[in-house]
Amino acid sequence: MSKTSEKNPVVGIVMGSDSDWPVMQAAADALEEFGVPFEARVVSAHRTPDLLFDYASTARKRGLVAVIAGAGGAAHLPGMLAAKTSVPVLGVPVPSKHLQGLDSLLSIVQMPKGVPVATFAIGEAGAANAALFAVALLATGEGDFGRELADKLDNFRRRQADKVLAMQLPGRA
Amino acid sequence: MSKTSEKNPVVGIVMGSDSDWPVMQAAADALEEFGVPFEARVVSAHRTPDLLFDYASTARKRGLVAVIAGAGGAAHLPGMLAAKTSVPVLGVPVPSKHLQGLDSLLSIVQMPKGVPVATFAIGEAGAANAALFAVALLATGEGDFGRELADKLDNFRRRQADKVLAMQLPGRA
Amino acid sequence: MSKTSEKNPVVGIVMGSDSDWPVMQAAADALEEFGVPFEARVVSAHRTPDLLFDYASTARKRGLVAVIAGAGGAAHLPGMLAAKTSVPVLGVPVPSKHLQGLDSLLSIVQMPKGVPVATFAIGEAGAANAALFAVALLATGEGDFGRELADKLDNFRRRQADKVLAMQLPGRA
Amino acid sequence: MSKTSEKNPVVGIVMGSDSDWPVMQAAADALEEFGVPFEARVVSAHRTPDLLFDYASTARKRGLVAVIAGAGGAAHLPGMLAAKTSVPVLGVPVPSKHLQGLDSLLSIVQMPKGVPVATFAIGEAGAANAALFAVALLATGEGDFGRELADKLDNFRRRQADKVLAMQLPGRA
Amino acid sequence: MSKTSEKNPVVGIVMGSDSDWPVMQAAADALEEFGVPFEARVVSAHRTPDLLFDYASTARKRGLVAVIAGAGGAAHLPGMLAAKTSVPVLGVPVPSKHLQGLDSLLSIVQMPKGVPVATFAIGEAGAANAALFAVALLATGEGDFGRELADKLDNFRRRQADKVLAMQLPGRA
Amino acid sequence: MSKTSEKNPVVGIVMGSDSDWPVMQAAADALEEFGVPFEARVVSAHRTPDLLFDYASTARKRGLVAVIAGAGGAAHLPGMLAAKTSVPVLGVPVPSKHLQGLDSLLSIVQMPKGVPVATFAIGEAGAANAALFAVALLATGEGDFGRELADKLDNFRRRQADKVLAMQLPGRA
Amino acid sequence: MSKTSEKNPVVGIVMGSDSDWPVMQAAADALEEFGVPFEARVVSAHRTPDLLFDYASTARKRGLVAVIAGAGGAAHLPGMLAAKTSVPVLGVPVPSKHLQGLDSLLSIVQMPKGVPVATFAIGEAGAANAALFAVALLATGEGDFGRELADKLDNFRRRQADKVLAMQLPGRA
Amino acid sequence: MSKTSEKNPVVGIVMGSDSDWPVMQAAADALEEFGVPFEARVVSAHRTPDLLFDYASTARKRGLVAVIAGAGGAAHLPGMLAAKTSVPVLGVPVPSKHLQGLDSLLSIVQMPKGVPVATFAIGEAGAANAALFAVALLATGEGDFGRELADKLDNFRRRQADKVLAMQLPGRA
Repeated sequence: MSKTSEKNPVVGIVMGSDSDWPVMQAAADALEEFGVPFEARVVSAHRTPDLLFDYASTARKRGLVAVIAGAGGAAHLPGMLAAKTSVPVLGVPVPSKHLQGLDSLLSIVQMPKGVPVATFAIGEAGAANAALFAVALLATGEGDFGRELADKLDNFRRRQADKVLAMQLPGRA
Repeated sequence: MSKTSEKNPVVGIVMGSDSDWPVMQAAADALEEFGVPFEARVVSAHRTPDLLFDYASTARKRGLVAVIAGAGGAAHLPGMLAAKTSVPVLGVPVPSKHLQGLDSLLSIVQMPKGVPVATFAIGEAGAANAALFAVALLATGEGDFGRELADKLDNFRRRQADKVLAMQLPGRA
Repeated sequence: MSKTSEKNPVVGIVMGSDSDWPVMQAAADALEEFGVPFEARVVSAHRTPDLLFDYASTARKRGLVAVIAGAGGAAHLPGMLAAKTSVPVLGVPVPSKHLQGLDSLLSIVQMPKGVPVATFAIGEAGAANAALFAVALLATGEGDFGRELADKLDNFRRRQADKVLAMQLPGRA
Repeated sequence: MSKTSEKNPVVGIVMGSDSDWPVMQAAADALEEFGVPFEARVVSAHRTPDLLFDYASTARKRGLVAVIAGAGGAAHLPGMLAAKTSVPVLGVPVPSKHLQGLDSLLSIVQMPKGVPVATFAIGEAGAANAALFAVALLATGEGDFGRELADKLDNFRRRQADKVLAMQLPGRA
Repeated sequence: MSKTSEKNPVVGIVMGSDSDWPVMQAAADALEEFGVPFEARVVSAHRTPDLLFDYASTARKRGLVAVIAGAGGAAHLPGMLAAKTSVPVLGVPVPSKHLQGLDSLLSIVQMPKGVPVATFAIGEAGAANAALFAVALLATGEGDFGRELADKLDNFRRRQADKVLAMQLPGRA
Repeated sequence: MSKTSEKNPVVGIVMGSDSDWPVMQAAADALEEFGVPFEARVVSAHRTPDLLFDYASTARKRGLVAVIAGAGGAAHLPGMLAAKTSVPVLGVPVPSKHLQGLDSLLSIVQMPKGVPVATFAIGEAGAANAALFAVALLATGEGDFGRELADKLDNFRRRQADKVLAMQLPGRA
Repeated sequence: MSKTSEKNPVVGIVMGSDSDWPVMQAAADALEEFGVPFEARVVSAHRTPDLLFDYASTARKRGLVAVIAGAGGAAHLPGMLAAKTSVPVLGVPVPSKHLQGLDSLLSIVQMPKGVPVATFAIGEAGAANAALFAVALLATGEGDFGRELADKLDNFRRRQADKVLAMQLPGRA
Repeated sequence: MSKTSEKNPVVGIVMGSDSDWPVMQAAADALEEFGVPFEARVVSAHRTPDLLFDYASTARKRGLVAVIAGAGGAAHLPGMLAAKTSVPVLGVPVPSKHLQGLDSLLSIVQMPKGVPVATFAIGEAGAANAALFAVALLATGEGDFGRELADKLDNFRRRQADKVLAMQLPGRA
């Protein structure tokens, strides 16, 4: 990703496999919509544990202020990232083939005292919400970027409400 | 809570009933340990909905940068706060009498696309972790307070690791 | 919905999104079958919380005697309506994408002491039954409308029984 | 229960066994608090099916406008009452010994299209809420009793809110 | 079903709706295979409760020695039959639309002490097995029919084992 | 168990461990109440598989007409007995330490097509009901013993109903 | 399977039905990839119990050092094999039609103290992992074959990591 | 642990916290009973991730042939060990405070294809069984130690069967 320096990624999106991309894309889409620079890549807790450690250990100094991590089944990626960095980790339970993501959810959310992972809904809604949460987190910042994001977030909320208000039920006037 | 102006609460802890306090106290304890000014109060989504709306609507301008909300059963408090503020909301599923907090967890974490709630583990561990996450969030800030918290967080992690390293199993040498 | 004054809606059907309509339509169909005037609209607890409060606060004075609310996932709509009105609220768990509506069911039914939501089955059967329950509720009224509905309900039950009695199993005589 | 005629019970509370009383008492207490005349008795779907049918068949003509039915495990009482009367039936899942009332909840709430049971939370909270719902139902009535109950309900809600507002967290000022 | 007297049905197959037939047909098929005379019909606990009572009350004197009852969701049919007859009732949980029959299973199997329902697996396998169990039950009888069924059952078991023994895995020699 | 020949056991009660006895005793008590001769012993599917096979293989010729088998956790005893005998097997899910018997229930009830196990409720209620079901099964027999049991069963049902009818709720007249 | 003597199977793959083959084939594929001689056949716990006993009893002397057993629903095959041999048994929960393999998982993993079954994930991933685990087990052996497998396993891990490292997310550079 | 060279530990027992010891002690006891040299220590995946990596990376060269890992809640320890070593990892789900170990079980067993963890029952039974499985694994070795363990295992099984055979049910002769 060739990016100018003022566009260094501030959010990392990682997932255990490229097969998680259809779910995690919703996070990328939301960050793009808000103009938040991010990186997205595959980091497998179980198949590339060293990469996971490296990714987490360097997250802060590479300028990331949040890492969004999606994983399914025995979903260890978010928790292990959180074990190796104090950058906020946002976990997204990817739906699993047989248990529909209930296993992913419990594997991510039930972290022991001391190492938090902020967990969101199973699947695409959770991926999008993790991104929106990252935006909200950045919007608490004091600089121009923070204020800009806060404004964008307010607009997003308003447009979202307007969309609901405009919904018509078929055959009802 | 009479506090000097430099001690205005930056984190709000709310819960649906004072019976949730034994669980949510872990959040207060963690924030105190890190020197993060906070307020704690009872706000019931179902019994005091107007207070909930008022609390959420004024959260940003009162200087809160995160709201930790604990609730059990049909746990609507975190999600409804998130519906009324873009300040990050951290949800803590309080164990319920009959379903052990599984209902609380699902009611909090399964938010629809557009309105995120960062969810933590069921019970006390989740309350403590929500607070630690709020600290991590504040530690991303650029001022002195942010840097100070980042240092404290690193120390906390180190002490936590040391405690594990020092653990002795009874009767094993 | 242009309606003459004697046709003011007495039942409100609300749902979190127009995507819930295929499920909630069963409620509208049942009310229509019984000639009960109703209104149906989208009210999102999380995306239009102010509308939700307004809808609930004015329900009684607008003449509604029951509100049927359908929602999925972290289904807060029925409970928050119930928090803002003492008009009976009937909750319908809309099937969710990953957990099949078990999350919706628990989020709706596990209300705390003090704020009841009458909950029905997951999905279309629950939507139809919420409407039939609203009819039964109206049938307890003392005026002509009540007596008329009570008769219709008896007829409905009889036809329903007759339909079962007439069922033939294929290939059995 | 010798009662004067103006005190004929309008709500019936039934339960499968006297061992359900500690749970169902919350319904009786709430009705008493609101001055709603009621009767309470044991009716077992499985051990006294004829009594169940008789109870349901005569409910309307005996003046009942709602029946609150509590049952645990394979909880058939509410649904079978609803099969035999069009008087609104409010179901309360009594906690079961091994599955904590999840079996009771599913047995009550998952009624097929055509025969509704309004279901409330597992246990005591559900029993109290079923009673409050019955009060709300009666409060939709047009006579003096309805208006009186509507007022009482408003007062109840206010007192309930005040109680929350007055809650103090130990050790926080 | 016109049958000669020596062919009076000895097993009844009942189900809550003709939509349960695709599942319950497996019971009929198995009984046919064993030459056990049976009847099959729709009896809905909730929509035709009187028929249910009548069916159960007359089961013994009509010569039934077992009733196989299939039902889904809040599956009350097997339990209510068992409440009205001491003829053995065999319950089959029919898969439900949203909860895959877990609700059906719990509604049928968790009967209270005193009124047993013999429960089998969810779906078609359970329906077939209920029939095989009825055959086994009849095979305990002392007359010719019992001995004949016992022999047939032994043959069935042998053929079943032979079928397994003859199974070839594709591409393995 | 020295028994006269006319008292040969007709029902076998087996369980995986003597720690299951507090649950399974309810089956023995019920059989004793009805005067049904039975034997009770520990047979572990996993620790004494040969005994299990021997027990099942000889069940019919030893005169057993039903085997009641209780087991917890990965509860293989009932299903493996059923695999080795066509004598009806009645399975009782014994509550397990961590999953409350849900694992026991699923391990017993979800038998594949071809080998039925009649399953009853988790715990003591299920044990008692398995015994009552065995009585009902014996009551379908044509001899004196069958007729006697049928009468006893009717009496039991009546006494059971009377007990419910006599139940008084504390503080209600 | 005509095999030369130095190719006697060292791992057995068994499954309850040939319908389990699409899942269990992943185990065969993995063993083939590593050059581990194996046999694969259908052994049904419930339909061919004697074969099961025979298979388990002779496993050790036939030279098997691990048995991979797949089963669904009331999945008794792995546990009963383990009851009859001290050769390590690796259990694979085959997805079931209605409960998605949760029943299979609990039936296999919840073995009582004294008779272990090593359990793997539900479905194909579990089947493949059981085979990889068998390879790892063989790789602990001291001979040439062990060392060779240990090397192959290291290569497999490396290739697996490389594959993850090479994954490209669509539309991200 | 000063040990002579012929007593170098061959099995490692690790757990996330010393609070898991009451469960994991059952593994240590079983290994001791069989005379298998082992080490036991606390290694927390989340609090001491570097130690976890170091432990796993050096496991093989330190002579371990199996690692038994116990963890609760979001139980990442077994899976992450397996990610860093090809020494067989045996996972023990430690019961969790609120969800009774169901979260632990799913977090451990649902590993993705490529990195197996052999999983055992929740709690103490699982810990003991993991140790017995490790013994069985060692008993497949060709040296004297292997043969000795195989004999001990046979003895253990026999004694275990004898214990069951000797069990007396209270009050039955």
